[in-house]
Amino acid sequence: MTRFVCRDCGLDFDVMVPRWRCDCGGLLDLDFTPSLDPAKVAGRPATLWRYREALPVPEGAELTLGEGFTPMVEVELGGRPVLVKQEQLFPTGSYKDRGAAVMMAMAAHIGVTDVVEDSSGNAGCAVSAFAAKAGIRCRIFVPADNSPGKLGQIELYGAELNPVPGSREDTAAACMAAAKDHYYASHVYNPFFFHGTKTFAYEVAEQLGWRAPDTVILPAGNGTLLLGAHIGFGELRDMGLIERVPRLVAVQSARCAPLCAAFAEGADGVSAAVSGPTLAEGIAIGLPMRGTQMLQAVRDTGGTCLAVSEEAILAAFRDAGRKGFCIEPTSAAVAAGAARYAKNADPDETIVTMFTGHGLKVGDKLHKLVSD
Amino acid sequence: MTRFVCRDCGLDFDVMVPRWRCDCGGLLDLDFTPSLDPAKVAGRPATLWRYREALPVPEGAELTLGEGFTPMVEVELGGRPVLVKQEQLFPTGSYKDRGAAVMMAMAAHIGVTDVVEDSSGNAGCAVSAFAAKAGIRCRIFVPADNSPGKLGQIELYGAELNPVPGSREDTAAACMAAAKDHYYASHVYNPFFFHGTKTFAYEVAEQLGWRAPDTVILPAGNGTLLLGAHIGFGELRDMGLIERVPRLVAVQSARCAPLCAAFAEGADGVSAAVSGPTLAEGIAIGLPMRGTQMLQAVRDTGGTCLAVSEEAILAAFRDAGRKGFCIEPTSAAVAAGAARYAKNADPDETIVTMFTGHGLKVGDKLHKLVSD
Ligand SMILES: Cc1ncc(COP(=O)(O)O)c(C=O)c1O
Ligand SMILES: Cc1ncc(COP(=O)(O)O)c(C=O)c1O
Ligand SMILES: [Zn+2]
Ligand SMILES: [Zn+2]
Repeated sequence: MTRFVCRDCGLDFDVMVPRWRCDCGGLLDLDFTPSLDPAKVAGRPATLWRYREALPVPEGAELTLGEGFTPMVEVELGGRPVLVKQEQLFPTGSYKDRGAAVMMAMAAHIGVTDVVEDSSGNAGCAVSAFAAKAGIRCRIFVPADNSPGKLGQIELYGAELNPVPGSREDTAAACMAAAKDHYYASHVYNPFFFHGTKTFAYEVAEQLGWRAPDTVILPAGNGTLLLGAHIGFGELRDMGLIERVPRLVAVQSARCAPLCAAFAEGADGVSAAVSGPTLAEGIAIGLPMRGTQMLQAVRDTGGTCLAVSEEAILAAFRDAGRKGFCIEPTSAAVAAGAARYAKNADPDETIVTMFTGHGLKVGDKLHKLVSD
Repeated sequence: MTRFVCRDCGLDFDVMVPRWRCDCGGLLDLDFTPSLDPAKVAGRPATLWRYREALPVPEGAELTLGEGFTPMVEVELGGRPVLVKQEQLFPTGSYKDRGAAVMMAMAAHIGVTDVVEDSSGNAGCAVSAFAAKAGIRCRIFVPADNSPGKLGQIELYGAELNPVPGSREDTAAACMAAAKDHYYASHVYNPFFFHGTKTFAYEVAEQLGWRAPDTVILPAGNGTLLLGAHIGFGELRDMGLIERVPRLVAVQSARCAPLCAAFAEGADGVSAAVSGPTLAEGIAIGLPMRGTQMLQAVRDTGGTCLAVSEEAILAAFRDAGRKGFCIEPTSAAVAAGAARYAKNADPDETIVTMFTGHGLKVGDKLHKLVSD
């Protein structure tokens, strides 16, 4: 039976009862045992639900907008071919749909009728869309100084915007307060979200013919994809479907690189970083709540952390465009990290990375980003 | 051997030599015989190139950004389930990638090094992206009064913008003049484009288990998808892979409905319509060059033409959003037509339609569109 398990005190809880952290305050993971038969998977529709025996959501509780099984395309990065998953092609424009699909499917399954979340970015979009699909009421807490133009996609999905005066932390606090009486559909705390993002690993393995790449280069904001990939590759190895977990290389903007700092210092946990303005807004998280876990994912797999400059981000953004790919500047940070890593990699190394978000998310800024 | 064939005089031409119309001025089609083995297709990557024996591009000349095999999702429209292909999830945000991928692959194959095109919308984006992928120089002719903000995606792909003072017709004329010395990568004239959009039909048939739906509801601007679908379903029937070509139902904005008018009058050809301002800008084509062919596609299949109001378009746009789908207003016109058709359809009828373009194309307008 799938259970919530506290990372700090080990206490476990029923997943049929909404809960977003332990009574001790600790973060929750899932105790869940996947199974999977590649032969069965092959004939199924091209969505992430093809791995359904590996997903902690009961049969019949699937929720889909057609998400997942994104194309993996060879792109020249750092002067050599790198396999790039096209995660910008998800329904809401980012891989956050992986997490939202699984998390909201589970929420609907346990009878949740309304949820709260505190992301005004891609996670908020994804949660809103799948809430809409599930017919679940959704309230998104956002800093009051957010311009309505930026939130149009969330409004389109019918989510209610709850503006909170003050800092980003005030918004989070307001949402946590609301989470006392409402299901917290959090991309940071809810472990079902990470069991959605783990499907990234399953797809990569299947698309390589049930083989792991040597290295995967990922963003590191709150680590929703990094930790998901770590779970997914770990499960695949435990099931004997791949031989080993690939090196996980985490990329941050040099303007906000708390994980890189902790990694370099050999620290056990991540300390808050001051964040400067960066093109890679989506990964500018000064204090990632799951920082310790993120560090472990990188270290356990023999990976590393890379901080990329604004110049490198802009160059990677433009380079992707000139190759036919329309990606978010945040996504370009990962591409910049991948290019840097690829330049020095063994020629035989199989390197996988991803475009995380669609450039049309900043459609009105493309002209300026290209021509300045 | 694949040949260009003139629709008017029957003259045929070598496809290895660039040409966009007959010497007589007539429109060109392709004389091409597809083949396909469904058993072989099944194991191939989830792009439109899985139908490669049915595509008029030589083996090895494929050009891909990961496009095609879009999800087909059941959505309630007009009070009943309709199967909706998620064509907004193409790399550049619309199904025009189908046409551009095949057309630009062929252009690269015959050694073309630069192309011209005269769409500032989704077709221009798609041509630019695949030109970038192919390393082909691309020049897009646009009306001089177009705001640069709207053209950012085209610029991102590295295409050169060629502003033309005057009307939309002046832009087309300037492009045709340039087409004397440059390859005209036209979504209207180039028949390879239509042999790309035909993959829509192949995907629908495969996703239904090699069966045709009863009815397909499509947009009718220049008819790139309507005519592609007609070709594709026709080929599938000729190969014995489906029993008959589905009814093709064409949707236009009531503010610009030349096809609907010609259909209602029983005319053989389409006369120019005056176009009023409409939310469905992408299908507001006053005089579609392939109008006669479009009428035939609708009539031959026992289909019909529907004109939808601005109110119905806005309602369909909002309805899609509240169901978790972020689509362009132009795309909402088709959804409005599908809802209207579905309401009166036989309950047993299998109805397929598509979301044609991504709502993030008008990301800065979503707030206003939702809240006005
Ligand atoms: C486009 C994009 N890329 C990357 C990230 C990184 O996030 P995380 O580290 O939580 O996976 C985000 C987060 O919102 C994002 O929006
Ligand atoms: C989003 C969208 N939908 C539909 C159409 C209809 O075009 P066509 O009739 O040429 O297929 C267009 C054309 O640009 C479009 O951009
Ligand atoms: Zn605890
Ligand atoms: Zn002729």
